[in-house]
Amino acid sequence: MKENTSSVNSPILIKRDLSQTSKTELLQECVSECIPLSEQEVESIKELVIVRHFKKGTLILREGQISTNCYSILSGCVRQYYLKNGEEKTTFFYTEGQTIFALRGSNQNLPAKHYLACVEDTTLTLLTQENEREMFRRFPRFQTLSRIALEEELGNYQQMLADYIIYSPEERYLNLMNFRPDLLDRVPHYHLATYLGVKPESLSRIRKRIMIKR
Amino acid sequence: MKENTSSVNSPILIKRDLSQTSKTELLQECVSECIPLSEQEVESIKELVIVRHFKKGTLILREGQISTNCYSILSGCVRQYYLKNGEEKTTFFYTEGQTIFALRGSNQNLPAKHYLACVEDTTLTLLTQENEREMFRRFPRFQTLSRIALEEELGNYQQMLADYIIYSPEERYLNLMNFRPDLLDRVPHYHLATYLGVKPESLSRIRKRIMIKR
Repeated sequence: MKENTSSVNSPILIKRDLSQTSKTELLQECVSECIPLSEQEVESIKELVIVRHFKKGTLILREGQISTNCYSILSGCVRQYYLKNGEEKTTFFYTEGQTIFALRGSNQNLPAKHYLACVEDTTLTLLTQENEREMFRRFPRFQTLSRIALEEELGNYQQMLADYIIYSPEERYLNLMNFRPDLLDRVPHYHLATYLGVKPESLSRIRKRIMIKR
Repeated sequence: MKENTSSVNSPILIKRDLSQTSKTELLQECVSECIPLSEQEVESIKELVIVRHFKKGTLILREGQISTNCYSILSGCVRQYYLKNGEEKTTFFYTEGQTIFALRGSNQNLPAKHYLACVEDTTLTLLTQENEREMFRRFPRFQTLSRIALEEELGNYQQMLADYIIYSPEERYLNLMNFRPDLLDRVPHYHLATYLGVKPESLSRIRKRIMIKR
């Protein structure tokens, strides 16, 4: 994140010494292809990847800020939303194991159009662009891992966009029940409604219809 | 694409010797970061990247097939669509300069859920996964270029998904008028309608409303 970020709430705790649990989770995060890491690679991850804890409600990013940080959720939930005519429109929920990729390339100096807010107390890893570059410099094979992770994430987004176009709000809700059932209990009803593209009262009707069918 | 692809229409022409014009376009495609290419790199691109021409209406990919090919459009237009209850739902239009990334990583052996059809006579470059690997082996810096291109494309898809959630069909149409005005003349009305998430008659009403306002 660039210098002028004073309006973002500070993390309540910054830990560079990872606990045993979060270290394991972090390594699982970073090595999605299950490639064993050398001791030097583990040490570099501990040095360059920062673990941060945020309280529920904290804004990690606000509209207008420039961020090239990449986050991975270790625990908790981060909501991405846009402000449209004063109304919050939720566009994604990031939970355990998911990565919030930063805008890079020709887009990396553009101010964010969206917000990132913690729906729960959240612990995440933070990798700055500088530290990522340093990681690639030290271990070129991490660039391959990063490319594979990006290819997977791009595939996910292509499918999510297609699904959003193809499915009705009720079908989108059924998809969530199948593929991200935890979200239904973790996030407020009105945020879920805008994410599905409906008013809260329509979501209530969808839920009732589905309850009756079961 | 795997062996069992007999149901896909064959390209009408396969050229490995690129014409001067398409060579220039191809290089522009491949080197989005404007990095000068060495003679060896240019020769490898000519060897490993295939240019193909397809007639309007050709299906490049059908639901159920497995493809790890990556395509870049030199000229023409390719429509991505899904069949839902017998109805074609358009989810993307790829035009000049855009790349159709293949599913990779853990998704790469999954059969496609979608179709790719040429809306116009189309010329594209085709890079198989094997040739891509060979390219990375010969020139590791191409891996960096690929990662940057993926980061940009991921950013584009994140924004498109967010836009789809945030905007109404009329706003989506206005966005197309601003950012992809060529599409409005190039693709049939009913395909455009499903892409915007409305029935063809609703798209006609949207068009009339916008005409009146102008």
